[in-house]
Amino acid sequence: MSRTFSLRELDVQVKKKKSFLCVGLDTDVNKLPLHFAKTLIAVVNFNRQIIEATSDLCVAYKLNIAFYEAMGAMGWECLRQTIELIPKDIFIIADAKRGDIGNTSNMYAKAFLEDLDFHAITLSPYMGKDSVTPYFNHKEKWAILLGLTSNEGAKDFQLQKMHDGKPLYEHVLETSKGWGNIENTMYVIGATRAEALKRVREIIPEHFLLVPGVGSQGGDMEEVIKAGATKEGRLLINASRSILYADNSKSFAAKAREQAMQLKLSMDIGFH
Amino acid sequence: MSRTFSLRELDVQVKKKKSFLCVGLDTDVNKLPLHFAKTLIAVVNFNRQIIEATSDLCVAYKLNIAFYEAMGAMGWECLRQTIELIPKDIFIIADAKRGDIGNTSNMYAKAFLEDLDFHAITLSPYMGKDSVTPYFNHKEKWAILLGLTSNEGAKDFQLQKMHDGKPLYEHVLETSKGWGNIENTMYVIGATRAEALKRVREIIPEHFLLVPGVGSQGGDMEEVIKAGATKEGRLLINASRSILYADNSKSFAAKAREQAMQLKLSMDIGFH
Repeated sequence: MSRTFSLRELDVQVKKKKSFLCVGLDTDVNKLPLHFAKTLIAVVNFNRQIIEATSDLCVAYKLNIAFYEAMGAMGWECLRQTIELIPKDIFIIADAKRGDIGNTSNMYAKAFLEDLDFHAITLSPYMGKDSVTPYFNHKEKWAILLGLTSNEGAKDFQLQKMHDGKPLYEHVLETSKGWGNIENTMYVIGATRAEALKRVREIIPEHFLLVPGVGSQGGDMEEVIKAGATKEGRLLINASRSILYADNSKSFAAKAREQAMQLKLSMDIGFH
Repeated sequence: MSRTFSLRELDVQVKKKKSFLCVGLDTDVNKLPLHFAKTLIAVVNFNRQIIEATSDLCVAYKLNIAFYEAMGAMGWECLRQTIELIPKDIFIIADAKRGDIGNTSNMYAKAFLEDLDFHAITLSPYMGKDSVTPYFNHKEKWAILLGLTSNEGAKDFQLQKMHDGKPLYEHVLETSKGWGNIENTMYVIGATRAEALKRVREIIPEHFLLVPGVGSQGGDMEEVIKAGATKEGRLLINASRSILYADNSKSFAAKAREQAMQLKLSMDIGFH
């Protein structure tokens, strides 16, 4: 069995749900609501309730692999069980930010796109073409490349000017867009740099963008949608902590739904 | 229990063994000698025999995490069991090439530097300072940043010229060397670009360098040592496949030892 997701299907889901929402399952066993134990079963159970409370509102879930690896071998099992709980019409991203030479990339592709059967994996572009193209051997699976990230450190290299005056991240987009195509490649573009989204859309007018940083990191939803949405949409706007940890009582799932609903409603301007 | 390794201890080991050798345990369950089963126990058993055959010749082992993650939850257990087999005077590297925002980096640091208790982890610098500094909270543990890699794709971004005419990788070294110090930071510099090693030593004259690409990828040992060794040494020169898969019969461990011995002897020019 292999889960696949075509560009067309993803466009359809976005339009049908009127949502760009991607819920980040960055589940930290130490931040679960107070009535949860600190066990594998508790994490899966928490994820199940978050998924049940939000799956009609979002088009994607993003699992931050670090949070699961911090649980060791059990974390790997937790990933597997969580993925099984996600409805078939929702796009599932391994937020792994891998990036290594070809034969190593094949191994990561096997781990995430075959064995765990994610639809997509996030990748760092620093090592260049041969660190990315092995993922394209998996049909209707996706590579999501870091373009311009939402953190402070983006200024250290991504925003540094190259020989032609353009910042490094623009070179990353321009060079790497030719490695795959709009049916197997997306880009991470942080919401905290909405002014850059216009420039991004000049370089890659049709690619899906995965946008973190709305909400807790200060990105503005309206600006992001105005500058980043194409006529088909082509945005996945991620929120993690603001949904997962909206409340630490037994009402956490209802509160998570409220937060997700609020975010989804704030996306309405993208569907007129 | 926490394994630590100071700069001083590592300098002592290099001098004592007259070796820069790092053996890469990129163990692929599908490439084991023919008499091995394709199981967790077989991988650990293979690693044990490689470690026994090479531990007096090398100063470090590097475990390529992708190869273990491709085995799922069992791979994680395999990492743990392999680490336990490595003698206490040898430096152990998680070749993970992670790189993410601060709270995620804390989780990867927990997974690799606390739970699995590696001495060091390789990191991609693309996301900048706040993606690297969380690893420095772990005393006498190490962050090994990608500088200039040995693969073809290094030319896509790392070797591209910035506004001042210097390539990106030089900016990465110059900017990031101030984030930590020579006691907690190393750099990956590929052996296939020995001409760049001289320039690297102008920028970071005292840092340890982890050098892949000698042998199977075409790097020249003598050139690497002449251009890269400091008076204390400060090199870890990695070989993986040429040692692990030197032979696929029952003599694989003896043949692996021969290969490791040959590499170690070719390092003698660094110890006069």
